[in-house]
Formats: sequence, structure tokens, C-alpha cells
Amino acid sequence: MMEKMDGEIEKTCVEYRDFPAYADREVVMKGMIHRIREMTGFAFVIIRTARDVVQCVYSPDFSDYRMDEKVVEGCAVKITGKIVKDQTREDRYEMQIHDIEVLSSPAEQMPIVINKKQLDNIPLDLNLNMRPVTLRNPKERAVFKIQEGIARGFREFLFSQNFTEIRTPKINAQGAEGGANIFRLDYFGKQVFLAQSPQFYKQMLVPVYERVFEVGPVFRAEHHDTSRHLNEYVSMDFEMGFIDSFYDIMNMETGALKYIMALLKKDYAPELALLNVDLPAIGEIPVVKFMDAKEIITKKYKKKITDYRDFEPEEEQILGKWAKQEYGSDFLFVTHYPSEKRPFYAMDDPADPAYTLSFDLLFRGIEITTGGQRIHDYGEQVAKMRARGMDPADFESYLMAHKYGMPPHGGLGLGLERITMHLLGFKNVRSASMFPRDINRVTP
Amino acid sequence: MMEKMDGEIEKTCVEYRDFPAYADREVVMKGMIHRIREMTGFAFVIIRTARDVVQCVYSPDFSDYRMDEKVVEGCAVKITGKIVKDQTREDRYEMQIHDIEVLSSPAEQMPIVINKKQLDNIPLDLNLNMRPVTLRNPKERAVFKIQEGIARGFREFLFSQNFTEIRTPKINAQGAEGGANIFRLDYFGKQVFLAQSPQFYKQMLVPVYERVFEVGPVFRAEHHDTSRHLNEYVSMDFEMGFIDSFYDIMNMETGALKYIMALLKKDYAPELALLNVDLPAIGEIPVVKFMDAKEIITKKYKKKITDYRDFEPEEEQILGKWAKQEYGSDFLFVTHYPSEKRPFYAMDDPADPAYTLSFDLLFRGIEITTGGQRIHDYGEQVAKMRARGMDPADFESYLMAHKYGMPPHGGLGLGLERITMHLLGFKNVRSASMFPRDINRVTP
Repeated sequence: MMEKMDGEIEKTCVEYRDFPAYADREVVMKGMIHRIREMTGFAFVIIRTARDVVQCVYSPDFSDYRMDEKVVEGCAVKITGKIVKDQTREDRYEMQIHDIEVLSSPAEQMPIVINKKQLDNIPLDLNLNMRPVTLRNPKERAVFKIQEGIARGFREFLFSQNFTEIRTPKINAQGAEGGANIFRLDYFGKQVFLAQSPQFYKQMLVPVYERVFEVGPVFRAEHHDTSRHLNEYVSMDFEMGFIDSFYDIMNMETGALKYIMALLKKDYAPELALLNVDLPAIGEIPVVKFMDAKEIITKKYKKKITDYRDFEPEEEQILGKWAKQEYGSDFLFVTHYPSEKRPFYAMDDPADPAYTLSFDLLFRGIEITTGGQRIHDYGEQVAKMRARGMDPADFESYLMAHKYGMPPHGGLGLGLERITMHLLGFKNVRSASMFPRDINRVTP
Repeated sequence: MMEKMDGEIEKTCVEYRDFPAYADREVVMKGMIHRIREMTGFAFVIIRTARDVVQCVYSPDFSDYRMDEKVVEGCAVKITGKIVKDQTREDRYEMQIHDIEVLSSPAEQMPIVINKKQLDNIPLDLNLNMRPVTLRNPKERAVFKIQEGIARGFREFLFSQNFTEIRTPKINAQGAEGGANIFRLDYFGKQVFLAQSPQFYKQMLVPVYERVFEVGPVFRAEHHDTSRHLNEYVSMDFEMGFIDSFYDIMNMETGALKYIMALLKKDYAPELALLNVDLPAIGEIPVVKFMDAKEIITKKYKKKITDYRDFEPEEEQILGKWAKQEYGSDFLFVTHYPSEKRPFYAMDDPADPAYTLSFDLLFRGIEITTGGQRIHDYGEQVAKMRARGMDPADFESYLMAHKYGMPPHGGLGLGLERITMHLLGFKNVRSASMFPRDINRVTP
């Protein structure tokens, strides 16, 4: 007799969120033994499932199974038992254990305590070294469940706006940003590079699909060991054609952020509660021009400006406070950055070519997005490259997009770990990466 | 007066699919001029929008705008006009042009003809060299719209089954598969590798989230220039814990494939029609054991077997035909591959350790998936590594997952370009990659 697969997935287990519907009934649950607390005459067996931590009670009074030394923390188990109301907290349910089947056993006890609410007193470095273990802590794993929600929200919103999802190559013949922070790779005797951003590709695809986005890894050979930089991170990028102005891009991002926050609130409430996350309310995001922002910093905050080409981190902090005080907003768009500090594909402001039609988005005083309108005219792009000492011949395939016609367009990039970090109030971006890569770390 | 962004996206254009609702009304449409056909006394101006190719009619009788030399193929335009029924095809609508605004212009005429239905007579190599242009052809871009749908379907189905989406690092200290086909990279003086698969990471995350998936790039330094291999491709991976047997994995994949086909039919009908795609009907997918499959090949098809460790491509073709004839199925699962040819983390069959609890999925006679149950017991995994001459100390962080407890689990990988290729009937996998990477190609 031949086996056949029909793709009908049978649900054989009950999830914690469905417990109320199964009150007083016997059900089956599978999970990892997260913690065992021996009491007098009974025991709490805390089970970690995909998304919950569930209290089960063992007692010879109602358990057929006799607890023995095989039932330890770290076991994978299948538990059969009855759903009852928690005796101490009327709003919660627990399970009275009837039977336990041990599906697998650990070889050793946990080397660090992961079954408290929080990974207390563990230095970040040890946490990162022990990721296969530390991520089992409910608060740790909640970080990356929320991160899933941010990326999912970005994607779902853009799909609703007729964007096409693209996947562009990470092995590139050129760097989009240039400079020293690019990884080099030997590719069958040729030198190639790891993608610093999908910039060229997403622009090339604007005349194809009008609106495109990608969520994927990018690589930056940052030589500095800072709390803000990773050498590999996930970039959420979009690029849209037929814009009337670069404000269209900012408005699209505002819509995406509103959608993301609403999705987190709706589908990630357990994790938000666990991490005490204060989701920002987004009504309207104020917009200020770069030079006006500099003036606010000098006049209102009496800070002396030393660099009129960019902001210092302290200045961004000041602007973040200002946006909160004046507009009650956690977000602030700053526009019209000096041309000098923006890439060669940024469109200069026709009203004043020393500035660009570009923006940064600050979230609680820290930059999380850089974006803007790009040059679409072939002659204009070639001229700007030459003015910067670049050879257009080095960018032949990129410039095909301009040469054969592309609409006015622009886009942005949003670092997934950075937005996660600031949303959760972390001090170090490594806390917002499952397996961070920095100048000293490539494991686990 | 301060600008503010509210994230409300106004729709200023009408899409082709909404034309019937706007019949006899004046609307605005934006797009690229795909083709101009001058007729006697009037002209067809074919507009390429994000997803459609729309016929507009210019005539001095109803157009305020006077056509001039500025209106050429490759322009980005904003057209105002009236929606009317197509005079020759009652089921279609077209637009009578009232006004044209040119938003941008190409610097040169198209170097190859992209505005016919198909890119006729263009060798694949030229097509790939000219990607920023050739992808503008409606059939070419349809390929990757369908590819979007495949990945989206995979993801949506797994979300519905409580999987967590993960993003694992592509810069690795070890290779999961080992062997020669791994890219090496200098990382601040250390030698590191580009990920061949997310295998280790997805296994480590099973005790964290029970079920995880990833859609992301992987890298293989294939030294051969074949029609089936890419050096960078998109891998769709999942891994699931608490399986009763590896048939659970196969059944999950069957469910995912059914969902993908249904989603393509529902949301990607224009592209399927354009490419004449014959979507496979999936009822039940038959399952045959490796050794039984070999017997079928010898007995029914009189082919002499020379290798009992794996299949030759020709043998897979025979099995594909057999599944179609016997079961009317485009898909066939082959199980219990010899242990010798499977990776060190594959679980051997307790009934016969020369074989593994593993499977391949053949689609129309070609392998698109490899998967199976993995070893979860620490001692068993260490022993298998040692038996293969591997040093467990080299895999310390990977083995943490086993050491501290992980449930019975397994998973699979599915190449996005390969499934696209076979679904669309392409001869070369490069046709199913926007910007393929092979031993000779890293541009565009």
C-alpha cells in the first residue's frame, strides 16, 4: 500500500490561547520543559511552547504518570491533561497533568538560567555567545518575534500599495555606496563585493514594476566597534516611480509605520506586554528642513554648530526632544540635506543645488531612515558622476535604466535591527540581532 | 507653515483592471510609453503600467494635445483621457487621449525590441546582459511577478501554520554542507564563509520557536557551468519541531504547494495567462521509497542501475513519468535515501541505518526539494560526526542546541529559482533569476 500526502494538516495539540474553549476537558500539549518547581506534595511543570509559557500542575492525586528523574528541564514532552482555571489567578488557565511522554532529553543541564522572566545579570557578550540557549528565554525570543512583525508589517503595507517584492543579488561587481566599508570576495579569480545596499537594483526595477521593495541582508565592513553598527544587517528598502515630489516617499513611509504599529498591537500583544513596549502613537509626522533644524538647535537650545554638512548624534537628540515637545511626535522628518554629504544618485534641489531632495527620519532622536528622490535623467546623472570624479563607464548596466527612460522616482532604506533596537529601548544594536556580526564576532 | 506627513495615500491614478468602473469618464493614468503605432489619421500609444499594457488612442479629433517629437517610446508620461470600449474587442477597454504630460525622456532609443509580446530571437546571454532593459518586456517581468507569488505563498501558508519568520546571518564561521563549493571571504583578517544554507541556524531555533522558516539568499561556489545551477540563489527553508515522523514535513510541504498554486491562480492570473502556464493540480502526492523506485526503474523501464547511492537525472525523469502515468501526479516524493549520500545531521532509519529518514520531492521528474528528519539527540549527533571523521569541537555552538535539549524535528529547503524554472518550463535556471550569478557572470 502506497503512502500519499494530501497536505491536510491535522491539529493534534491545543495552544494556550485556546485554553478557555477547552476548560474542564482533557487535551494534548507539546513543548519543552522550561522549569520544574517542586512543592510539598505536588510540582509545577512549566512548559514552553512556540509562543507561550504554560503552567502545568503535577500531583499524584490526578496524575497517572509518576514523576521520575527522566523528567527534567530541557526535555521535549507531550503532556496529556485537563484544562482548569488557575487557582490563584482567575483570569488564567493551567493544565492538570494526567500523563507525560518524554520525546527527547538534554545531555546536560542548562549552563545558565534561562527560565526566569529575564536573563538577569548576564553580560551581553555571554548572551550572544550562548545564543542557542539564551534565545530560549521568553523575553529574548519575544524581541525577534516583534522583529518579525516589523518586517511583516512593512511588507504587507507595501503589497497593499501595489509594490512588487524583489530579491536582488548580494554578490555584486560594484558597491552602491563605494568607500572603504565594503567586503571584498574572490569569485573564481575575479574580485567582487558583497552588497552594501540594493540601491542600483531597486532603481533599475522602477521602470519595470513602478514600485518595488526588498527585505534582505546587506553587508558593511565597518571597522569600528560601536553600539550602533553591525557588519551584516537586514535592510528594508523600497523605491517608487511616478512620484510628484519626494514628500510622496515620506508619506508612504509614514503609512508603513502606522501600519506596522497597528499590526504589532493587533498580533504581537503578548510579546509587547512581556517587554513593556511603549508603542509610539503616529498621528502626523512633522517635517523640518535641515538648515531650519540647525537654526532651532542654535537659537532654542543654544548649541554652537560646528558642522553645517550633517548632524552630530547630540544634535539629533535635541531635534528628537524638540519634535516631542512641540508636536508630541516620536518621529521627525528632516529634509534637504546638503548635497556634499549625499550619494551621487541623490537629486539636487533645483531651487538650491547645494541641497538635495532628500530626508532622514529620526525616531526618538536617532536616525532610522535615509531616503530621497533620485536622478532619473541620464545626462544629469552622468554629469553629477563626472563632477564627483567618477567614471560613468564603470556603471554601464546601472545607467542603462536612465539611458532608456525611467520615471521620476525615489525611495528609502530602513534598518530592521535599528528600528527594533529603538522601539524596544535597547542601548546596543546587537541586542536586536539574533546572531550579530561585528568586527570581533562571526559566531554563533 | 510646517509640512506634515499623515500617511494617507491618495489614489490619483486609475489602474487598468478598474477601467470598466470608469467607462465614459475622464481619468488620469501614469506609465511608460511602451510602443507607438502610427496609423492613418490617428495613433495607438501603448502604455506600460506596473502590471498592465494599456492601449490608448491618440487622434486630433478628441486629443487636446498635439503629438510631437517629444512623445517617444521610453518616455514616462501622465495621460488624461476617457475610458471607452475597445472598438475591435468588446471585452476590452482603451483610453482616448485628451492630454499627455511628459514626465521624463530617454536619452536613447531602445537598443533591442522589448515592446513585442516576447523577446524574440534574443540569445539568453544578451537578455541577461541587458536586464535593466529586457525586464521591461511584459513576459520577462511576468516571470518574476510569479516568482514573487511563489515566495509569498510559501510564507503566507507557513504563517498560517504558526511558523516564525527568521533571518539568519549569511557570513558564517562554518559551512553547513562543507565541501569545496563554499565561498571564502576575508573578514578583518579572519577567514569566514558565505552561507550555503541556513541549516544550523534553523535547527538551533527549533527549541526557541518550534517552527521557523526563512526565505533568503544562499551561496554555492559551483565550479561547473550548467543549466541547473546558480552560484547565488534564493532558498526557501523551513524547520519544524515535535514531528511524529518525517512524513509530517512532507505533508507540510504538500500543504504549502497547494496553497501556492491556489494563490497563483487567484492573484497572478494575468501573468499566468501571458506565459501560458499550466499550473499543476495537486490532489495527493504519491510517496515511494528509494530502493523501490530503483526497482521500478529496472523492472518497468528496463534501465540498468549503475549507482545505488543516488539517482541520475535520467532516472528522475523516468520516475516523473511513472508518477504521472500511475497517479496523475506532477509531484513525487522519494524517501529513505542512502545514508552515505546524506549530510551528517540526517537521521538514520532505526529499521535500517544504511538509509535515512529523508526525502526528495520531484516535480515533473526534477528534484526541487531535499529534506528529512534531523538528529536531535546530542550523543547520537556527536557519534555520527565522529564516524564521518568530523571533530565535534568545530561545531560547538551548533551542538549547544542538541546538548541542552531539542525536540524531534526536521525540515527542508526549496530553491525558488528552480521551482520557478520548472513551473514555467524553462530549460535554463538563469531564465528564472532576475540577475543570475554563475561562474562567468556577476553583472548586471
